[in-house]
Amino acid sequence: MHAPIAFSGSHVDRADHIRNDPAALDALKTWQARLLRMDGLDPVLTLESTLDWGSLADAAPDSELVFLGLDGERGCFAEVRKSYPSGSPHAGPASWNAMAVLEAGELAAYGGARSLVGWHSRHRFCAVCGSATVLAKGGWQRNCTNADCKAEHFPRVDPVTIMTVECDGKLLLGRQPRFPAGRYSALAGFVEPGETIEEAVAREVFEEAGVRARDVEYVISQPWPFPSSLMIGCHAFADDPAIVMDETEMEDVRWFTREEVTEALEATERGEQGRAFGAPPKTAVAHALLRWWVARGA
Amino acid sequence: MHAPIAFSGSHVDRADHIRNDPAALDALKTWQARLLRMDGLDPVLTLESTLDWGSLADAAPDSELVFLGLDGERGCFAEVRKSYPSGSPHAGPASWNAMAVLEAGELAAYGGARSLVGWHSRHRFCAVCGSATVLAKGGWQRNCTNADCKAEHFPRVDPVTIMTVECDGKLLLGRQPRFPAGRYSALAGFVEPGETIEEAVAREVFEEAGVRARDVEYVISQPWPFPSSLMIGCHAFADDPAIVMDETEMEDVRWFTREEVTEALEATERGEQGRAFGAPPKTAVAHALLRWWVARGA
Repeated sequence: MHAPIAFSGSHVDRADHIRNDPAALDALKTWQARLLRMDGLDPVLTLESTLDWGSLADAAPDSELVFLGLDGERGCFAEVRKSYPSGSPHAGPASWNAMAVLEAGELAAYGGARSLVGWHSRHRFCAVCGSATVLAKGGWQRNCTNADCKAEHFPRVDPVTIMTVECDGKLLLGRQPRFPAGRYSALAGFVEPGETIEEAVAREVFEEAGVRARDVEYVISQPWPFPSSLMIGCHAFADDPAIVMDETEMEDVRWFTREEVTEALEATERGEQGRAFGAPPKTAVAHALLRWWVARGA
Repeated sequence: MHAPIAFSGSHVDRADHIRNDPAALDALKTWQARLLRMDGLDPVLTLESTLDWGSLADAAPDSELVFLGLDGERGCFAEVRKSYPSGSPHAGPASWNAMAVLEAGELAAYGGARSLVGWHSRHRFCAVCGSATVLAKGGWQRNCTNADCKAEHFPRVDPVTIMTVECDGKLLLGRQPRFPAGRYSALAGFVEPGETIEEAVAREVFEEAGVRARDVEYVISQPWPFPSSLMIGCHAFADDPAIVMDETEMEDVRWFTREEVTEALEATERGEQGRAFGAPPKTAVAHALLRWWVARGA
Protein backbone atom coordinates (compact mmCIF):
# COMPACT_ATOMS: atom_id res chain seq x y z
CA MET A 1 0.00 0.00 0.00
CA HIS A 2 2.77 2.43 0.93
CA ALA A 3 6.35 2.70 -0.26
CA PRO A 4 8.63 1.71 2.64
CA ILE A 5 9.00 4.66 4.98
CA ALA A 6 12.44 5.72 6.24
CA PHE A 7 13.67 3.75 9.29
CA SER A 8 11.51 0.72 8.43
CA GLY A 9 12.56 -2.52 6.76
CA SER A 10 15.63 -3.58 8.71
CA HIS A 11 17.25 -6.79 7.47
CA VAL A 12 18.32 -7.68 11.01
CA ASP A 13 16.10 -10.45 12.45
CA ARG A 14 15.25 -9.45 16.04
CA ALA A 15 15.29 -13.15 17.04
CA ASP A 16 13.67 -12.39 20.37
CA HIS A 17 13.90 -16.00 21.57
CA ILE A 18 17.67 -15.51 21.89
CA ARG A 19 17.25 -12.55 24.26
CA ASN A 20 15.77 -14.88 26.87
CA ASP A 21 18.41 -17.58 26.39
CA PRO A 22 21.73 -16.52 28.01
CA ALA A 23 23.60 -19.54 26.60
CA ALA A 24 22.44 -18.86 23.05
CA LEU A 25 23.31 -15.20 23.47
CA ASP A 26 26.82 -15.98 24.74
CA ALA A 27 27.35 -18.43 21.88
CA LEU A 28 26.83 -15.54 19.44
CA LYS A 29 29.59 -13.41 20.97
CA THR A 30 32.35 -14.75 18.75
CA TRP A 31 34.91 -13.16 16.42
CA GLN A 32 32.28 -13.46 13.69
CA ALA A 33 29.79 -11.23 15.53
CA ARG A 34 29.19 -7.76 14.12
CA LEU A 35 29.40 -4.56 16.17
CA LEU A 36 27.64 -1.49 14.81
CA ARG A 37 30.15 1.32 15.06
CA MET A 38 28.63 4.56 16.33
CA ASP A 39 30.01 7.98 17.23
CA GLY A 40 28.03 8.63 20.40
CA LEU A 41 24.54 8.18 19.04
CA ASP A 42 25.52 9.21 15.51
CA PRO A 43 26.04 6.73 12.68
CA VAL A 44 29.51 5.96 11.36
CA LEU A 45 29.53 5.33 7.61
CA THR A 46 32.09 3.68 5.35
CA LEU A 47 33.46 5.39 2.25
CA GLU A 48 30.86 3.39 0.31
CA SER A 49 28.04 4.97 2.35
CA THR A 50 27.15 1.81 4.21
CA LEU A 51 26.97 1.28 7.97
CA ASP A 52 30.39 0.55 9.44
CA TRP A 53 30.13 -2.86 11.12
CA GLY A 54 33.20 -3.86 13.12
CA SER A 55 33.78 -6.79 15.45
CA LEU A 56 33.27 -7.14 19.21
CA ALA A 57 37.01 -6.42 19.60
CA ASP A 58 36.14 -2.81 18.76
CA ALA A 59 34.01 -2.43 21.89
CA ALA A 60 35.46 -0.88 25.04
CA PRO A 61 36.14 -3.55 27.71
CA ASP A 62 33.67 -1.99 30.15
CA SER A 63 30.88 -1.43 27.63
CA GLU A 64 27.51 -3.17 27.84
CA LEU A 65 26.44 -4.98 24.65
CA VAL A 66 22.96 -4.75 23.12
CA PHE A 67 21.87 -7.67 20.95
CA LEU A 68 20.24 -6.13 17.89
CA GLY A 69 19.41 -9.46 16.27
CA LEU A 70 20.72 -11.87 13.67
CA ASP A 71 22.22 -11.22 10.26
CA GLY A 72 21.95 -14.74 8.90
CA GLU A 73 23.62 -16.71 11.70
CA ARG A 74 25.84 -13.89 12.92
CA GLY A 75 24.89 -11.87 15.97
CA CYS A 76 24.62 -8.10 15.53
CA PHE A 77 25.44 -5.94 18.54
CA ALA A 78 25.69 -2.30 19.58
CA GLU A 79 27.79 -0.89 22.39
CA VAL A 80 26.61 1.11 25.41
CA ARG A 81 29.67 2.94 26.67
CA LYS A 82 30.10 3.88 30.30
CA SER A 83 30.33 7.54 29.37
CA TYR A 84 27.12 9.13 28.20
CA PRO A 85 27.19 9.72 24.42
CA SER A 86 27.52 13.41 23.77
CA GLY A 87 25.15 15.28 21.56
CA SER A 88 21.46 15.89 21.28
CA PRO A 89 18.71 13.26 21.20
CA HIS A 90 17.42 15.00 18.07
CA ALA A 91 18.53 14.37 14.49
CA GLY A 92 21.81 16.14 13.70
CA PRO A 93 23.81 16.52 10.48
CA ALA A 94 25.25 12.98 10.64
CA SER A 95 21.77 11.50 10.93
CA TRP A 96 20.33 13.59 8.12
CA ASN A 97 23.26 12.53 5.95
CA ALA A 98 22.58 8.88 6.82
CA MET A 99 18.94 9.35 5.79
CA ALA A 100 20.11 10.73 2.48
CA VAL A 101 22.65 8.05 1.57
CA LEU A 102 21.98 4.79 3.43
CA GLU A 103 20.09 1.87 1.90
CA ALA A 104 16.64 1.56 3.56
CA GLY A 105 17.34 -1.63 5.51
CA GLU A 106 20.59 -0.24 6.87
CA LEU A 107 18.96 3.02 7.90
CA ALA A 108 16.35 1.01 9.80
CA ALA A 109 19.03 -1.04 11.56
CA TYR A 110 20.80 2.14 12.62
CA GLY A 111 17.55 3.77 13.81
CA GLY A 112 16.62 0.84 16.03
CA ALA A 113 20.14 0.69 17.48
CA ARG A 114 20.20 4.43 18.13
CA SER A 115 16.93 4.34 20.09
CA LEU A 116 18.11 1.40 22.18
CA VAL A 117 21.60 2.72 22.92
CA GLY A 118 20.17 6.14 23.75
CA TRP A 119 17.67 4.56 26.13
CA HIS A 120 20.38 2.56 27.94
CA SER A 121 22.54 5.64 28.25
CA ARG A 122 19.74 7.52 29.97
CA HIS A 123 18.56 4.66 32.19
CA ARG A 124 21.63 3.65 34.19
CA PHE A 125 19.64 4.19 37.39
CA CYS A 126 16.38 2.80 38.67
CA ALA A 127 13.51 5.30 38.47
CA VAL A 128 11.75 3.47 41.32
CA CYS A 129 14.54 3.55 43.93
CA GLY A 130 17.58 5.39 42.49
CA SER A 131 19.95 2.39 42.57
CA ALA A 132 22.18 1.36 39.67
CA THR A 133 20.67 -0.76 36.90
CA VAL A 134 22.33 -3.36 34.70
CA LEU A 135 21.57 -4.47 31.17
CA ALA A 136 19.47 -7.65 30.91
CA LYS A 137 17.91 -9.87 28.23
CA GLY A 138 20.40 -8.89 25.57
CA GLY A 139 19.69 -5.20 26.08
CA TRP A 140 15.91 -5.30 25.84
CA GLN A 141 15.58 -4.74 29.57
CA ARG A 142 17.45 -3.17 32.50
CA ASN A 143 17.18 -4.56 36.02
CA CYS A 144 17.58 -2.73 39.31
CA THR A 145 20.54 -4.05 41.32
CA ASN A 146 18.88 -3.24 44.68
CA ALA A 147 17.73 -6.59 46.10
CA ASP A 148 14.81 -4.87 47.87
CA CYS A 149 13.57 -3.36 44.59
CA LYS A 150 14.53 -5.53 41.61
CA ALA A 151 12.41 -3.34 39.31
CA GLU A 152 12.51 -4.24 35.63
CA HIS A 153 12.68 -1.45 33.07
CA PHE A 154 11.92 -1.63 29.36
CA PRO A 155 12.96 0.51 26.37
CA ARG A 156 10.67 3.44 25.70
CA VAL A 157 8.65 3.83 22.53
CA ASP A 158 6.73 7.11 22.58
CA PRO A 159 3.64 7.24 20.35
CA VAL A 160 3.24 10.59 18.58
CA THR A 161 0.24 11.52 16.47
CA ILE A 162 0.95 13.56 13.34
CA MET A 163 -1.96 14.65 11.21
CA THR A 164 -3.17 16.44 8.14
CA VAL A 165 -6.60 18.08 8.42
CA GLU A 166 -8.79 18.83 5.41
CA CYS A 167 -11.51 21.49 5.11
CA ASP A 168 -13.11 22.71 1.88
CA GLY A 169 -10.46 20.81 -0.10
CA LYS A 170 -7.57 22.59 1.63
CA LEU A 171 -4.98 21.15 4.01
CA LEU A 172 -4.00 22.50 7.43
CA LEU A 173 -0.23 22.79 7.96
CA GLY A 174 1.86 24.72 10.43
CA ARG A 175 5.37 25.89 11.14
CA GLN A 176 7.30 25.94 14.39
CA PRO A 177 9.95 28.59 15.06
CA ARG A 178 12.73 25.96 14.81
CA PHE A 179 11.77 24.95 11.22
CA PRO A 180 13.94 25.99 8.24
CA ALA A 181 12.68 29.16 6.55
CA GLY A 182 9.51 28.59 4.52
CA ARG A 183 8.90 25.04 5.83
CA TYR A 184 5.37 23.98 6.79
CA SER A 185 4.51 20.51 8.04
CA ALA A 186 1.75 18.44 9.60
CA LEU A 187 0.78 19.27 13.19
CA ALA A 188 1.92 16.69 15.73
CA GLY A 189 1.99 15.82 19.41
CA PHE A 190 2.58 12.98 21.88
CA VAL A 191 -0.25 10.63 22.77
CA GLU A 192 -0.95 11.10 26.48
CA PRO A 193 -2.00 8.53 29.08
CA GLY A 194 -5.75 7.95 28.93
CA GLU A 195 -6.56 8.80 25.33
CA THR A 196 -7.04 6.94 22.06
CA ILE A 197 -5.09 7.79 18.91
CA GLU A 198 -8.19 9.50 17.57
CA GLU A 199 -8.67 11.56 20.74
CA ALA A 200 -5.00 12.59 20.69
CA VAL A 201 -5.35 13.79 17.08
CA ALA A 202 -8.44 15.86 17.86
CA ARG A 203 -6.84 17.36 20.99
CA GLU A 204 -3.60 18.34 19.23
CA VAL A 205 -5.40 19.96 16.31
CA PHE A 206 -7.58 21.95 18.69
CA GLU A 207 -4.67 22.95 20.94
CA GLU A 208 -2.36 24.06 18.14
CA ALA A 209 -4.84 25.47 15.63
CA GLY A 210 -8.20 25.87 17.41
CA VAL A 211 -9.75 23.65 14.73
CA ARG A 212 -12.22 20.86 15.56
CA ALA A 213 -11.21 17.66 13.74
CA ARG A 214 -13.57 14.78 12.97
CA ASP A 215 -13.43 11.41 11.19
CA VAL A 216 -9.81 10.67 12.06
CA GLU A 217 -8.32 8.03 9.75
CA TYR A 218 -5.04 6.17 10.30
CA VAL A 219 -2.70 6.40 7.30
CA ILE A 220 0.87 5.28 8.06
CA SER A 221 3.38 4.81 10.90
CA GLN A 222 7.11 5.34 11.25
CA PRO A 223 9.73 4.71 13.93
CA TRP A 224 11.61 8.00 14.40
CA PRO A 225 14.69 7.40 16.54
CA PHE A 226 15.14 10.95 17.88
CA PRO A 227 15.01 9.68 20.52
CA SER A 228 12.33 6.97 20.40
CA SER A 229 9.11 8.12 18.75
CA LEU A 230 6.53 5.98 17.01
CA MET A 231 5.01 8.44 14.55
CA ILE A 232 1.34 7.61 13.92
CA GLY A 233 0.27 9.44 10.76
CA CYS A 234 -3.44 10.28 10.46
CA HIS A 235 -5.82 12.30 8.34
CA ALA A 236 -8.93 14.10 9.57
CA PHE A 237 -11.57 16.51 8.37
CA ALA A 238 -12.84 19.80 9.74
CA ASP A 239 -16.03 21.76 9.07
CA ASP A 240 -14.91 25.18 10.29
CA PRO A 241 -11.61 26.57 8.94
CA ALA A 242 -11.32 29.37 11.53
CA ILE A 243 -7.85 29.16 13.12
CA VAL A 244 -6.94 30.12 16.68
CA MET A 245 -3.22 29.40 16.81
CA ASP A 246 -1.23 28.32 19.89
CA GLU A 247 1.27 31.18 19.95
CA THR A 248 3.64 29.38 22.31
CA GLU A 249 4.24 26.36 20.06
CA MET A 250 3.52 27.56 16.53
CA GLU A 251 4.81 30.42 14.43
CA ASP A 252 2.10 30.07 11.77
CA VAL A 253 -0.76 27.74 10.90
CA ARG A 254 -2.66 28.02 7.63
CA TRP A 255 -4.64 26.24 4.93
CA PHE A 256 -2.97 25.25 1.64
CA THR A 257 -4.69 24.31 -1.62
CA ARG A 258 -4.18 20.95 -3.31
CA GLU A 259 -2.24 22.76 -6.07
CA GLU A 260 0.09 24.37 -3.54
CA VAL A 261 0.76 21.06 -1.77
CA THR A 262 1.32 19.25 -5.07
CA GLU A 263 3.75 21.91 -6.28
CA ALA A 264 5.64 21.94 -2.97
CA LEU A 265 6.12 18.15 -3.14
CA GLU A 266 7.32 18.37 -6.75
CA ALA A 267 9.76 21.11 -5.78
CA THR A 268 11.18 18.83 -3.05
CA GLU A 269 12.00 16.28 -5.76
CA ARG A 270 14.12 18.93 -7.48
CA GLY A 271 15.77 19.92 -4.19
CA GLU A 272 13.93 23.20 -4.26
CA GLN A 273 11.39 24.96 -2.08
CA GLY A 274 7.80 25.19 -3.27
CA ARG A 275 6.30 28.52 -4.18
CA ALA A 276 3.72 28.56 -1.37
CA PHE A 277 5.83 26.69 1.19
CA GLY A 278 8.67 24.21 1.68
CA ALA A 279 7.45 20.61 2.09
CA PRO A 280 8.81 18.39 4.88
CA PRO A 281 11.83 16.25 3.87
CA LYS A 282 11.23 12.96 2.05
CA THR A 283 12.30 10.83 5.01
CA ALA A 284 9.70 12.41 7.32
CA VAL A 285 6.31 10.78 7.79
CA ALA A 286 4.73 14.19 7.18
CA HIS A 287 6.03 14.02 3.61
CA ALA A 288 4.34 10.63 3.18
CA LEU A 289 1.09 12.05 4.58
CA LEU A 290 1.14 14.92 2.07
CA ARG A 291 1.88 12.49 -0.78
CA TRP A 292 -0.95 10.23 0.38
CA TRP A 293 -3.38 13.16 0.40
CA VAL A 294 -2.37 14.34 -3.08
CA ALA A 295 -2.51 10.80 -4.50
CA ARG A 296 -5.95 10.16 -3.02
CA GLY A 297 -7.40 13.02 -5.02
CA ALA A 298 -10.31 15.31 -4.22
CA MET B 1 -17.33 4.50 13.02
CA HIS B 2 -16.85 2.64 16.31
CA ALA B 3 -18.84 2.64 19.52
CA PRO B 4 -16.73 4.37 22.19
CA ILE B 5 -14.19 1.92 23.56
CA ALA B 6 -13.69 1.52 27.31
CA PHE B 7 -11.32 4.10 28.87
CA SER B 8 -11.99 6.64 26.11
CA GLY B 9 -14.28 9.68 26.19
CA SER B 10 -13.28 11.41 29.43
CA HIS B 11 -15.28 14.56 30.19
CA VAL B 12 -12.26 16.15 31.86
CA ASP B 13 -10.68 18.81 29.61
CA ARG B 14 -6.90 18.32 29.74
CA ALA B 15 -6.42 22.10 29.41
CA ASP B 16 -2.72 21.70 28.73
CA HIS B 17 -2.08 25.47 28.65
CA ILE B 18 -2.65 25.50 32.41
CA ARG B 19 0.12 22.94 33.00
CA ASN B 20 2.68 25.45 31.79
CA ASP B 21 1.23 28.35 33.79
CA PRO B 22 2.11 28.02 37.51
CA ALA B 23 -0.07 30.97 38.50
CA ALA B 24 -3.13 29.57 36.70
CA LEU B 25 -2.47 26.17 38.23
CA ASP B 26 -2.20 27.59 41.76
CA ALA B 27 -5.39 29.57 41.23
CA LEU B 28 -7.25 26.29 40.65
CA LYS B 29 -6.16 24.81 44.00
CA THR B 30 -9.15 26.11 45.94
CA TRP B 31 -11.82 24.50 48.11
CA GLN B 32 -13.83 24.02 44.92
CA ALA B 33 -11.17 21.81 43.32
CA ARG B 34 -11.94 18.11 43.00
CA LEU B 35 -9.62 15.35 44.16
CA LEU B 36 -10.10 11.90 42.67
CA ARG B 37 -10.11 9.51 45.59
CA MET B 38 -8.09 6.36 44.94
CA ASP B 39 -7.12 3.34 47.02
CA GLY B 40 -3.49 2.96 45.95
CA LEU B 41 -4.02 2.73 42.20
CA ASP B 42 -7.52 1.27 42.52
CA PRO B 43 -10.68 3.30 42.00
CA VAL B 44 -12.91 4.27 44.92
CA LEU B 45 -16.60 4.28 43.99
CA THR B 46 -19.61 5.85 45.68
CA LEU B 47 -22.70 3.85 46.58
CA GLU B 48 -24.19 5.16 43.33
CA SER B 49 -21.35 3.58 41.32
CA THR B 50 -19.72 6.86 40.36
CA LEU B 51 -16.14 7.98 40.95
CA ASP B 52 -15.67 9.38 44.43
CA TRP B 53 -14.42 12.94 44.02
CA GLY B 54 -13.38 14.63 47.25
CA SER B 55 -11.65 17.96 47.86
CA LEU B 56 -7.98 18.86 48.15
CA ALA B 57 -8.40 18.68 51.94
CA ASP B 58 -8.55 14.91 51.51
CA ALA B 59 -4.96 14.78 50.23
CA ALA B 60 -2.10 13.96 52.57
CA PRO B 61 -0.03 17.08 53.40
CA ASP B 62 3.12 15.65 51.82
CA SER B 63 1.44 14.34 48.64
CA GLU B 64 2.24 15.66 45.18
CA LEU B 65 -0.81 16.76 43.16
CA VAL B 66 -1.38 15.84 39.50
CA PHE B 67 -3.59 18.21 37.50
CA LEU B 68 -5.93 15.99 35.49
CA GLY B 69 -7.69 18.89 33.80
CA LEU B 70 -10.83 20.98 34.09
CA ASP B 71 -14.40 19.98 34.86
CA GLY B 72 -16.10 23.16 33.73
CA GLU B 73 -14.06 25.75 35.65
CA ARG B 74 -13.06 23.46 38.49
CA GLY B 75 -9.62 21.88 38.59
CA CYS B 76 -9.51 18.10 38.86
CA PHE B 77 -6.53 16.57 40.67
CA ALA B 78 -5.14 13.22 41.73
CA GLU B 79 -2.78 12.56 44.60
CA VAL B 80 0.66 10.95 44.45
CA ARG B 81 1.37 9.76 47.98
CA LYS B 82 4.87 9.50 49.36
CA SER B 83 4.41 5.81 49.98
CA TYR B 84 4.26 3.65 46.90
CA PRO B 85 0.70 2.43 46.24
CA SER B 86 0.54 -1.25 47.03
CA GLY B 87 -0.76 -3.76 44.55
CA SER B 88 -0.11 -4.85 41.02
CA PRO B 89 0.14 -2.62 37.93
CA HIS B 90 -2.34 -5.00 36.28
CA ALA B 91 -6.12 -4.83 36.44
CA GLY B 92 -7.45 -6.26 39.69
CA PRO B 93 -10.99 -6.91 40.96
CA ALA B 94 -11.65 -3.23 41.80
CA SER B 95 -10.70 -2.18 38.27
CA TRP B 96 -12.78 -4.87 36.61
CA ASN B 97 -15.72 -3.82 38.77
CA ALA B 98 -15.20 -0.18 37.71
CA MET B 99 -15.21 -1.27 34.06
CA ALA B 100 -18.53 -3.03 34.67
CA VAL B 101 -20.37 -0.24 36.48
CA LEU B 102 -18.83 3.19 35.71
CA GLU B 103 -20.22 5.54 33.06
CA ALA B 104 -17.82 5.68 30.07
CA GLY B 105 -16.51 9.20 30.67
CA GLU B 106 -15.84 8.49 34.33
CA LEU B 107 -14.03 5.25 33.52
CA ALA B 108 -11.81 7.20 31.11
CA ALA B 109 -11.04 9.84 33.75
CA TYR B 110 -10.05 7.11 36.19
CA GLY B 111 -7.90 5.31 33.61
CA GLY B 112 -5.90 8.42 32.72
CA ALA B 113 -5.40 9.24 36.40
CA ARG B 114 -4.33 5.70 37.21
CA SER B 115 -1.65 5.70 34.50
CA LEU B 116 -0.30 9.06 35.62
CA VAL B 117 -0.28 8.34 39.36
CA GLY B 118 1.32 4.95 38.73
CA TRP B 119 4.00 6.57 36.59
CA HIS B 120 4.82 9.17 39.26
CA SER B 121 5.00 6.48 41.92
CA ARG B 122 7.58 4.56 39.93
CA HIS B 123 9.64 7.57 38.82
CA ARG B 124 10.67 9.26 42.05
CA PHE B 125 14.31 9.00 40.95
CA CYS B 126 16.17 10.16 37.86
CA ALA B 127 16.98 7.31 35.47
CA VAL B 128 19.93 9.33 34.12
CA CYS B 129 21.76 10.05 37.40
CA GLY B 130 19.87 8.41 40.28
CA SER B 131 18.99 11.64 42.11
CA ALA B 132 15.51 12.46 43.43
CA THR B 133 12.94 13.92 41.02
CA VAL B 134 10.07 16.30 41.70
CA LEU B 135 6.72 16.71 40.01
CA ALA B 136 6.59 19.52 37.41
CA LYS B 137 4.09 21.05 34.97
CA GLY B 138 1.07 19.96 36.93
CA GLY B 139 2.21 16.35 36.93
CA TRP B 140 2.89 15.93 33.23
CA GLN B 141 6.64 15.94 33.85
CA ARG B 142 9.19 15.12 36.55
CA ASN B 143 12.46 17.03 36.86
CA CYS B 144 15.74 15.83 38.28
CA THR B 145 16.81 17.82 41.36
CA ASN B 146 20.55 17.38 40.64
CA ALA B 147 21.77 20.73 39.30
CA ASP B 148 24.40 18.96 37.16
CA CYS B 149 21.75 16.80 35.49
CA LYS B 150 18.37 18.55 35.40
CA ALA B 151 16.95 15.77 33.21
CA GLU B 152 13.26 16.06 32.34
CA HIS B 153 11.13 12.93 32.39
CA PHE B 154 7.72 12.41 30.80
CA PRO B 155 4.87 9.96 31.47
CA ARG B 156 5.16 6.70 29.60
CA VAL B 157 2.65 5.54 27.02
CA ASP B 158 3.60 2.10 25.71
CA PRO B 159 2.22 1.21 22.28
CA VAL B 160 1.04 -2.41 22.04
CA THR B 161 -0.14 -4.04 18.83
CA ILE B 162 -3.04 -6.47 19.15
CA MET B 163 -4.25 -8.25 16.06
CA THR B 164 -6.66 -10.67 14.50
CA VAL B 165 -5.35 -12.66 11.53
CA GLU B 166 -7.60 -14.17 8.86
CA CYS B 167 -6.88 -17.16 6.61
CA ASP B 168 -9.45 -19.08 4.56
CA GLY B 169 -12.23 -17.22 6.36
CA LYS B 170 -11.03 -18.31 9.81
CA LEU B 171 -9.60 -16.17 12.59
CA LEU B 172 -6.37 -16.80 14.53
CA LEU B 173 -6.74 -16.52 18.31
CA GLY B 174 -4.62 -17.75 21.18
CA ARG B 175 -4.65 -18.30 24.90
CA GLN B 176 -1.99 -17.58 27.48
CA PRO B 177 -1.66 -19.72 30.61
CA ARG B 178 -2.91 -16.82 32.80
CA PHE B 179 -6.25 -16.54 30.92
CA PRO B 180 -9.51 -17.77 32.51
CA ALA B 181 -10.42 -21.32 31.43
CA GLY B 182 -11.67 -21.49 27.86
CA ARG B 183 -10.74 -17.88 26.98
CA TYR B 184 -9.07 -17.16 23.63
CA SER B 185 -8.11 -13.68 22.50
CA ALA B 186 -6.20 -11.75 19.86
CA LEU B 187 -2.40 -12.10 19.86
CA ALA B 188 -0.58 -9.02 21.12
CA GLY B 189 2.84 -7.55 21.88
CA PHE B 190 4.68 -4.30 22.53
CA VAL B 191 5.93 -2.22 19.62
CA GLU B 192 9.73 -2.16 19.85
CA PRO B 193 12.16 0.64 19.00
CA GLY B 194 12.87 0.70 15.27
CA GLU B 195 9.70 -0.82 13.83
CA THR B 196 6.44 0.41 12.32
CA ILE B 197 3.04 -0.69 13.65
CA GLU B 198 2.74 -2.99 10.64
CA GLU B 199 6.18 -4.54 11.23
CA ALA B 200 5.35 -5.09 14.90
CA VAL B 201 2.12 -6.89 13.96
CA ALA B 202 3.89 -9.18 11.51
CA ARG B 203 6.69 -9.92 13.99
CA GLU B 204 4.35 -10.76 16.86
CA VAL B 205 2.18 -13.06 14.74
CA PHE B 206 5.26 -14.89 13.51
CA GLU B 207 6.84 -15.12 16.95
CA GLU B 208 3.74 -16.38 18.74
CA ALA B 209 2.10 -18.50 16.02
CA GLY B 210 4.69 -19.02 13.26
CA VAL B 211 2.21 -17.48 10.80
CA ARG B 212 3.25 -14.95 8.17
CA ALA B 213 0.85 -11.97 8.21
CA ARG B 214 0.32 -9.59 5.30
CA ASP B 215 -1.85 -6.54 4.49
CA VAL B 216 -2.00 -5.23 8.04
CA GLU B 217 -4.90 -2.83 8.54
CA TYR B 218 -5.42 -0.49 11.49
CA VAL B 219 -8.86 -0.91 13.11
CA ILE B 220 -9.14 0.77 16.54
CA SER B 221 -7.10 2.01 19.49
CA GLN B 222 -7.61 2.04 23.26
CA PRO B 223 -5.75 3.42 26.26
CA TRP B 224 -5.35 0.52 28.71
CA PRO B 225 -4.09 1.84 32.05
CA PHE B 226 -2.48 -1.36 33.36
CA PRO B 227 -0.05 0.31 33.62
CA SER B 228 0.11 2.60 30.58
CA SER B 229 -0.53 0.78 27.31
CA LEU B 230 -1.85 2.26 24.10
CA MET B 231 -3.54 -0.73 22.48
CA ILE B 232 -3.34 -0.50 18.68
CA GLY B 233 -5.87 -2.95 17.24
CA CYS B 234 -5.16 -4.29 13.75
CA HIS B 235 -6.36 -6.92 11.31
CA ALA B 236 -4.17 -8.87 8.89
CA PHE B 237 -4.37 -11.75 6.47
CA ALA B 238 -2.32 -14.93 6.10
CA ASP B 239 -1.92 -17.35 3.20
CA ASP B 240 -0.59 -20.36 5.11
CA PRO B 241 -2.53 -21.52 8.21
CA ALA B 242 0.24 -23.80 9.53
CA ILE B 243 0.90 -22.89 13.17
CA VAL B 244 4.23 -23.12 15.01
CA MET B 245 3.35 -21.92 18.50
CA ASP B 246 5.68 -20.11 20.91
CA GLU B 247 5.48 -22.57 23.80
CA THR B 248 6.96 -20.12 26.31
CA GLU B 249 4.27 -17.47 25.89
CA MET B 250 1.21 -19.30 24.60
CA GLU B 251 -0.78 -22.27 25.84
CA ASP B 252 -2.71 -22.72 22.60
CA VAL B 253 -3.15 -20.95 19.26
CA ARG B 254 -5.79 -22.01 16.76
CA TRP B 255 -8.13 -20.95 13.96
CA PHE B 256 -11.83 -20.30 14.67
CA THR B 257 -14.66 -20.15 12.14
CA ARG B 258 -16.85 -17.08 11.70
CA GLU B 259 -19.73 -19.03 13.26
CA GLU B 260 -17.65 -19.89 16.32
CA VAL B 261 -16.54 -16.29 16.81
CA THR B 262 -20.09 -14.99 16.33
CA GLU B 263 -21.51 -17.45 18.82
CA ALA B 264 -18.78 -16.69 21.37
CA LEU B 265 -19.55 -12.95 21.19
CA GLU B 266 -23.28 -13.60 21.57
CA ALA B 267 -22.60 -15.82 24.58
CA THR B 268 -20.61 -12.98 26.18
CA GLU B 269 -23.72 -10.78 25.96
CA ARG B 270 -25.57 -13.39 28.05
CA GLY B 271 -22.68 -13.60 30.51
CA GLU B 272 -21.89 -17.08 29.27
CA GLN B 273 -18.95 -18.77 27.60
CA GLY B 274 -19.17 -19.65 23.93
CA ARG B 275 -19.27 -23.27 22.82
CA ALA B 276 -15.93 -23.18 20.97
CA PHE B 277 -14.22 -20.65 23.27
CA GLY B 278 -14.76 -17.79 25.69
CA ALA B 279 -14.52 -14.36 24.03
CA PRO B 280 -12.47 -11.56 25.59
CA PRO B 281 -14.46 -9.24 27.90
CA LYS B 282 -16.49 -6.40 26.39
CA THR B 283 -14.17 -3.70 27.74
CA ALA B 284 -11.10 -5.19 26.02
CA VAL B 285 -10.03 -3.95 22.60
CA ALA B 286 -9.79 -7.60 21.50
CA HIS B 287 -13.57 -7.85 21.92
CA ALA B 288 -14.01 -4.82 19.64
CA LEU B 289 -11.68 -6.40 17.07
CA LEU B 290 -13.74 -9.60 17.01
CA ARG B 291 -16.98 -7.60 16.68
CA TRP B 292 -15.44 -5.55 13.86
CA TRP B 293 -14.46 -8.74 12.01
CA VAL B 294 -17.90 -10.33 12.39
CA ALA B 295 -19.68 -7.10 11.36
CA ARG B 296 -17.48 -6.70 8.28
CA GLY B 297 -18.68 -10.01 6.93
CA ALA B 298 -16.90 -12.47 4.68
